[in-house]
Amino acid sequence: MATSRDALIPQADRMFDGATHKLDVWSIFTPNNLPPDTLNLGQGFMNWAPPEWVREEQHRIMDTDVMSNHYSQTRGRPRLLKAISKQYSKTFGNLVKEGRELTMEEIVVTAGANCGTFAALVAHIQPGEEVIVIEPYFDQYFASIHFQGGKPVMVPLHPPTGSGEKTGADWTLDIEEFRAAFTSKTKAVIVNTPHNPTGKVFSRQELEEIAKICVEKKVLVLSDEVYDCLLYDGTKHVRIAELPGMWERTLTIASAGKSFACTGWRVGWVIGPPALCAATLAAHSRIVFCTNTPLQEAVAYALETETEHNFFADQLAAYTERRDILCGIFDEIGLSYTKPQGAYYLMVDFSPVKIPKDYAVPPTCQGRGEDFKKAWWLAQEIKVASIPISEFYAAEHANIGERFLRFSFCKDPPLLRAAGERLLKLKEYMK
Amino acid sequence: MATSRDALIPQADRMFDGATHKLDVWSIFTPNNLPPDTLNLGQGFMNWAPPEWVREEQHRIMDTDVMSNHYSQTRGRPRLLKAISKQYSKTFGNLVKEGRELTMEEIVVTAGANCGTFAALVAHIQPGEEVIVIEPYFDQYFASIHFQGGKPVMVPLHPPTGSGEKTGADWTLDIEEFRAAFTSKTKAVIVNTPHNPTGKVFSRQELEEIAKICVEKKVLVLSDEVYDCLLYDGTKHVRIAELPGMWERTLTIASAGKSFACTGWRVGWVIGPPALCAATLAAHSRIVFCTNTPLQEAVAYALETETEHNFFADQLAAYTERRDILCGIFDEIGLSYTKPQGAYYLMVDFSPVKIPKDYAVPPTCQGRGEDFKKAWWLAQEIKVASIPISEFYAAEHANIGERFLRFSFCKDPPLLRAAGERLLKLKEYMK
Ligand SMILES: Cc1ncc(COP(=O)(O)O)c(C=O)c1O
Ligand SMILES: Cc1ncc(COP(=O)(O)O)c(C=O)c1O
Repeated sequence: MATSRDALIPQADRMFDGATHKLDVWSIFTPNNLPPDTLNLGQGFMNWAPPEWVREEQHRIMDTDVMSNHYSQTRGRPRLLKAISKQYSKTFGNLVKEGRELTMEEIVVTAGANCGTFAALVAHIQPGEEVIVIEPYFDQYFASIHFQGGKPVMVPLHPPTGSGEKTGADWTLDIEEFRAAFTSKTKAVIVNTPHNPTGKVFSRQELEEIAKICVEKKVLVLSDEVYDCLLYDGTKHVRIAELPGMWERTLTIASAGKSFACTGWRVGWVIGPPALCAATLAAHSRIVFCTNTPLQEAVAYALETETEHNFFADQLAAYTERRDILCGIFDEIGLSYTKPQGAYYLMVDFSPVKIPKDYAVPPTCQGRGEDFKKAWWLAQEIKVASIPISEFYAAEHANIGERFLRFSFCKDPPLLRAAGERLLKLKEYMK
Repeated sequence: MATSRDALIPQADRMFDGATHKLDVWSIFTPNNLPPDTLNLGQGFMNWAPPEWVREEQHRIMDTDVMSNHYSQTRGRPRLLKAISKQYSKTFGNLVKEGRELTMEEIVVTAGANCGTFAALVAHIQPGEEVIVIEPYFDQYFASIHFQGGKPVMVPLHPPTGSGEKTGADWTLDIEEFRAAFTSKTKAVIVNTPHNPTGKVFSRQELEEIAKICVEKKVLVLSDEVYDCLLYDGTKHVRIAELPGMWERTLTIASAGKSFACTGWRVGWVIGPPALCAATLAAHSRIVFCTNTPLQEAVAYALETETEHNFFADQLAAYTERRDILCGIFDEIGLSYTKPQGAYYLMVDFSPVKIPKDYAVPPTCQGRGEDFKKAWWLAQEIKVASIPISEFYAAEHANIGERFLRFSFCKDPPLLRAAGERLLKLKEYMK
């Protein structure tokens, strides 16, 4: 068997990361691969369950409504579509101004935000078209654009410079660099706010500058806002879709997994004008047919009743406490970080940490950034899992990301404090 | 706004059915679109719930194991992978012969069989490559191949001829026609047994003939076996993967939705050699990241314990009764049908039924086969929903399918009998 056809081996450029056979970072730093007593501040899932009242409703509906176990309408369960319309309409300034609510044609329920993004890309990107992505980026975008035969074009956020406390706002987009990334082939732009991994929340002014160029260039915008209910210190979340000229060209992507601590339920949604939603729906219904039904029902109930449980407010207070614990730990160690304005990640500058030069890492971490080695070492020796950030940059810019490790604080205070005790040992490696 | 780029309207060839903006058949004949008192023998979901003991375990695990609410390993929950290996290893003759069980590298859990097929196509089909599909086919294949820039190439099953009782075995593949469909661009073949919509179960001899050519032509085979536990009258299910030379080139696709009456849970799996699974997994983990976790856990329990509940055996007895009720109804009406050897659909020849020539149908049913009109009329006037079969044929061959409507018998006896009473009125339209 000689040709790749004979061997049935897929071409690398449709697999993995679009360029090589590198394993994705999530599969390397998955708990199964790490020492069993590692404390996991890596992947962004909570170490607590979704609310009990939501789980109870899930059980009730599954046991009393046969249809909650069967195929949904491809667009989503009517009850969930209604609940989304009710909750979200008031969060889009343009709709409030128009005095109207989202119609069913302006929503598509998807198998997580991930499949929402993927379906939107399948629906809208043709081979050869370019998609502008802001670095560092949630790595799934990159592969998904490649799957469509599209080309990701990167524009970096510039890391904070100088000393003193830094927040997400200190990661800055050079709007002229952004403008220069457009070509005649640019079809879409992906924006992510609150931003993974920096915790940056794009300001109204920044979004207005981005929006102006998107309108001028007549491109589609995918706005990944999965962390839209995690905003600290009174930071305001602006939806790019509400800015002038943007509604008609924007798909806003959200995730129940992030909002209700149920990352494994795989329920998300896409909001936008009917034509963009129709295309996304057509793609999504070919990809997975429909999102799982029983957990859609549960999420509908969660949205319907979150206010009476004061859920988002309490959750935000809890996350704020968790963020502050984790920040305090790195203050004590003396490693600088970006104080997040939103989301639940802390980007820590690990350049002062020196690991043994000859430290052995597995093949999956070889030939990659210094951060992969440090993250591997940290998990093995300090027993704390993190995520290396070069994975959130294209290969050409991986060196920017190499400085950073990302720590998740969607973990409860005891776990964070226990990790803190272990992390204190880092001081010995910073001399 | 002039160009399609400006309007952000997706090109038709990546949407809908690969050729036009036609709405998919499932969205037309969805309960919401039909009179509320219609009896639904259309889409293939059960009107009963998954087993109570499985739902109980789902509730228990969700409430006691935090991690059952969060991201799974991308390949699937370890417990489910183990349960699949245990249940399925003994159903592949080649593994039995080798005296071994499926390894974890030979399984990928997917968001339903639908996303398993889609991921396998993303992983393996490059733009310009051809995929041979046997007509009539589950319509999702067609669109999914198009999404990859692939080209579906159709080979028909020939409908039964002559009078007397017909079974799925009377739908025949002309193996020379099948051979003639191969070109230098053929990359894969999709086989579906037990077959939707005919109820045909491919015989060992038929599969051996197909397999011989696939080995000779060195192509990949996707074998959609989602109805593998619904086989009537002692019909034997042969897996094409177990035939000589086939394991290394076959991905077998299965669905918990069909096996455990939970079509809305969206849990399926793909079985095959490690290299083919690795590529499928890489695609699937970019598409949806992972399959929803709580329902994976429930399905694991279902597989672990189905024998002690005699579940598959009892389920088969129930389906056999349902099939016979539906067959009896059409016997009484005098419309001929194919007696299914497997799956849960009845293909009925509706050519003797004459509906009013000027009967008005909505735009979604216009410009399509006569069967769309008849199915629409049947739902509106007789209040029984079915699925028109021309949708399961490429446009060039839609006229073959136009004769048939498909009725699902994954419905309980009272519903089937009530539908039967209504369907008796058809006699008035057969004169
Ligand atoms: C920015 C961003 N978008 C999307 C997702 C995926 O969300 P979901 O779990 O709903 O697919 C994540 C998950 O980490 C994320 O960080
Ligand atoms: C032949 C065939 N394959 C796949 C599927 C989809 O299975 P799932 O619901 O697991 O995605 C169906 C559903 O009707 C089918 O008939």
